Amino acid sequence: MNALAILGGTGAQGMGLALRLAAAGEAIVIGSRSLERAQDAAAKVRAAVPQADVEGRENLDAAAQASRILLVLPVDGLDAFLDQAAAHLADKLVIDAMVPLMVKKRVAELVAVAGAPSVSELVQLRAAAARVVCAFKNVPSDALQDLSRTLASDVLLCSDDDAARAEVAVLVEHIPGLRPVDAGPLRLAHYVEGLTALLVTMNIRHKALTSIAIVGLERSA
Amino acid sequence: MNALAILGGTGAQGMGLALRLAAAGEAIVIGSRSLERAQDAAAKVRAAVPQADVEGRENLDAAAQASRILLVLPVDGLDAFLDQAAAHLADKLVIDAMVPLMVKKRVAELVAVAGAPSVSELVQLRAAAARVVCAFKNVPSDALQDLSRTLASDVLLCSDDDAARAEVAVLVEHIPGLRPVDAGPLRLAHYVEGLTALLVTMNIRHKALTSIAIVGLERSA
Repeated sequence: MNALAILGGTGAQGMGLALRLAAAGEAIVIGSRSLERAQDAAAKVRAAVPQADVEGRENLDAAAQASRILLVLPVDGLDAFLDQAAAHLADKLVIDAMVPLMVKKRVAELVAVAGAPSVSELVQLRAAAARVVCAFKNVPSDALQDLSRTLASDVLLCSDDDAARAEVAVLVEHIPGLRPVDAGPLRLAHYVEGLTALLVTMNIRHKALTSIAIVGLERSA
Repeated sequence: MNALAILGGTGAQGMGLALRLAAAGEAIVIGSRSLERAQDAAAKVRAAVPQADVEGRENLDAAAQASRILLVLPVDGLDAFLDQAAAHLADKLVIDAMVPLMVKKRVAELVAVAGAPSVSELVQLRAAAARVVCAFKNVPSDALQDLSRTLASDVLLCSDDDAARAEVAVLVEHIPGLRPVDAGPLRLAHYVEGLTALLVTMNIRHKALTSIAIVGLERSA
């Protein structure tokens, strides 16, 4: 099977991406630390998207089975996860959509990640054989989760693996309203994560649900 | 006089902003280390914008005279400039549009600034009484300089001084095609600078001239 496992998939961002990707026809495995919560989340996706091909599993089990893995884990559990799961990520497409944010006094800022300048680089360092792509970091969860809402956002893709980035670009294109944009090597992921801090701060200040569009591009990724 | 001094204004970014702001009816003083180059640049602005109210002066002289100051100095000369000029910035509106970029192997990255996490914060630290606003960091110089080109870009404004930010928002609104967006306190300027590294990298990869639009905002700054 060529299912896409969404690890940490029961949170807002994971559910949003599961809904949109299931609606786009992808076979999805929602991963969670709890099998029960994973299965509940899968049932919710099926209720919203009747044609969905979706099941729930424990994170490690989902990672072991799937050939493509989307990471939306809580950042504070990432280190422990990578200790256990690195072998399951080897040679696989690993899409990192995590942003280590902290909101304090209505301002969002990045939390430093121990061991790397960005979450994406940490994943690549700890799972050296994984084909890591930074993606979906700037698309608001609340917009993803509301299927009645038309998306309008560019998805910045950073990777050191051109084939992996191209694969994710196709995945992004399957979701109506999202456009993939090649944004360079993985070491620029730090700036993509910082952009999310700006967007979340703007959401708070403007009571909005913001995302970004790159103006002036003729071509996408 | 309420002129706007553009320090380091003979470079691409300074000339672009001088042209657009002069066309919008602002009285401009272009500053340079060389009086002659400043006057040459002023003559170029007058040639392109016949109604321009523009003159050239040495940087420190321009800073001393003007009540509003826009900084587009080369970052490697910033420290020396702040040593000499801090007193001229006190109590004035100081718009920082500088980004410390380095391009290597077709990838743009930020250069660390000694003493602060961002250029904007360095200016505020070294000129504590200045009313510093981070602005214009994501608008491409080449687009600014070509007056036949229609701009379409959001200008992210970071500041700890709400009145100063509002003043800059009005200035931005006077330039057709630019929209000011309140993007939070000055400590988020680091992310705005990082965004420029992403945009410049995309320009190289896509042979484009990119800027950003914030999608999902109902209101501007």
